Formats: sequence, structure tokens, C-alpha cells
Amino acid sequence: MQELLHQHLKKFADVKDVEFNELIKFFELLKMKKKEILLAEGQLCRRNFFVLKGCLRMFFIKENGMEQTTQFAIENWWMTDNLAFLQQQSSSFAIQAIEQSEVLSISFEAQEEMLSQFPQMERYFRKVYEKSFAAAQLRIRYINDFSREQLYHHFALLQPAFLQRIPQYMLASYLGFTPEYLSEIKKKHFGK
Amino acid sequence: MQELLHQHLKKFADVKDVEFNELIKFFELLKMKKKEILLAEGQLCRRNFFVLKGCLRMFFIKENGMEQTTQFAIENWWMTDNLAFLQQQSSSFAIQAIEQSEVLSISFEAQEEMLSQFPQMERYFRKVYEKSFAAAQLRIRYINDFSREQLYHHFALLQPAFLQRIPQYMLASYLGFTPEYLSEIKKKHFGK
Repeated sequence: MQELLHQHLKKFADVKDVEFNELIKFFELLKMKKKEILLAEGQLCRRNFFVLKGCLRMFFIKENGMEQTTQFAIENWWMTDNLAFLQQQSSSFAIQAIEQSEVLSISFEAQEEMLSQFPQMERYFRKVYEKSFAAAQLRIRYINDFSREQLYHHFALLQPAFLQRIPQYMLASYLGFTPEYLSEIKKKHFGK
Repeated sequence: MQELLHQHLKKFADVKDVEFNELIKFFELLKMKKKEILLAEGQLCRRNFFVLKGCLRMFFIKENGMEQTTQFAIENWWMTDNLAFLQQQSSSFAIQAIEQSEVLSISFEAQEEMLSQFPQMERYFRKVYEKSFAAAQLRIRYINDFSREQLYHHFALLQPAFLQRIPQYMLASYLGFTPEYLSEIKKKHFGK
């Protein structure tokens, strides 16, 4: 199962088998039940997560008490509250498994140590964060430009795998819809 | 003036003077007049920009024909359309100097070459993108949670230097206000 991380590292950086066998020791394998909380809002954010199997979501509680989902992560995706992780402070978000999941978890100290022992991991994380930031930049464009219905179609086009896996009310929260409105749009979209 | 980049590199990575003298050769110095366009929307995004002096903004034209500003960059900040730069494709954004500015510009090919010749730059860019992504993650939270007035106060708190430098109508566009509404909020904020 950890082989998934190895493959992902190799896509972006030169990591030999013998090196992977060393650097995997910095990680801890977590098995999460559906709905289990990995990180609570307000809790010290000590760890970064890589999804081997399953699906995570990131959310926060809005001033009006509603949950707002802001990100999903499936296999091969990293997830943490990056600012809180960098500054080792309390998190502005919660992270929850929305399926039974397996996750590699690494502490801030272990990640720093891994980066100093394996400098090729700088290249790997440079590419991971570069792509993440690029996606966030575009997302801010879409939020500013698209109608809610266009946001749905765009999401369906770019992330079809998510549509099947994510519960409707969470997808609605991510897109800023009511579940009823999402259901109407889906009917239109699939012509049912 | 290029010394500003050197100082910024040293904050995040180990770059010696003799190395800086080599890697600065990958950059080109651009002097921009106020309102000059560095990158047009739809143009092939070949270059990444580091601000030595002045201020840039990133914007796009909305479906309704209005300009929407999505980012600003002052001294020590990098700016490009990151996805278009990575994929060497046409840009979804335009970049404009909003003051007389001096900018270091580097092409995609030169940046790749610099990274392979100076691996410590991987660490530098890993940290730059990590922080950029962390800020974008929080920004998506604020967009989803804050009223427009709260967004203004938050911006004023975190980025006071920008308030003095950025024309009112651009700040209004960034925050999703009309210029009139921004003017009302500013009067309240400064108690005038």
C-alpha cells in the first residue's frame, strides 16, 4: 500500500528503492474509519497527511454554525492546514475521513528531518506545492467568475471521480449550494 | 537592486555570494511604467516575475466584461499564472504594473536550468510555494466565511502597506466591492 507514495515520489523526483525504504520510516500508517476526525479545528496542527486509500475532506465551522467544506483529498493527495502546520499552531480547519481510509502521517519535525537527509524531497515538495498553489490560483478565478451552476459543471468535468464518491450534502457545501439545489442541477446535468 | 533577491534567497536557502552571481544571470531586469502590461490574458505564459520595486496586480476579464483583480505583488513577491507557466500554455490572467516597477523576469527553461544547476533553489521555491499555497487555503476560508466588510478589515490588518499604495477601484475589485461601498467602509474604519 505504501508503494503508492513511492510511485508518487518517483513521478516528481529521483528517489531510489533503498532511499524510499529509509524515508518511509518517517511516516506512520493510520487506518481511519468513515467519519473519523484526523484533525480538529483549533487543535495544534502537528501532522501532514498523504492518502493511500479512501477520501478526506477539510472543513471549518462558519460563523452561522454551518460546516463549510473547502477541499477534498483522494489517493495520492496531500492534506493539512498548511499555515498551521508550518507555524506549528492551532488549525483553522478540521480534517475528516469520509470513507474508510488509509493515510500516511508525518510530523513537522520528521518532515524537516526527512528534507535534510533526502534533499531530493525538496524537489518533490516544490512540485507538489507549486501545483497546489497553481490550482488554488485558478480556483479563486472560478469562484469570482462562475455561476454556481457553472462551478458544478466545471467540477464534474475536472473531477469526475469525486462525483461518485462524495456524499451529496458535502459536495453541496463545497460548492456553496443547498443540497436541494445541487440535486436539481444534477438532474439537468445528467438529463434525468 | 538585485540584492533584494539575494537577501530573499538567503532567508529560505543556503545561497553563497559566488552562487548568486551565477544564478542572477538566468534573470532579465525589466523596468515597467505604471499601467504597463507584463502578461496579457490569453498570451503564452513564458515567464515568472520577482518584484524588486513597485507593485503588480493580477486580473482577468469577467464574463460580464468587468476586470476582476485576484492578487497583488509588492517587493519580494513572486507572480505569474502558475498553471500556465508550468504547462507553458496561454494565461488565464493578465499581469500589470500599477506603479513604476522593476522586476526580475525568468523564463520557464531558465528556471528549470537554474534548479538543476543550483539544487538549493529547490528548497527556496519549495518554501515560497508552500507559503503561497498556505495563504491561498486560508483565503478560500475567508471568502466563504467573512462578510465583505470583514474582508476589508482583515485585509487592512494583514496588509496595511497595500492600503496606501493600491488605487481604490482596484482594491474594491479585489474585495468584490463597488468603489462607492469601499469608500463608505473606509470612512467607518478610519472614523472619518
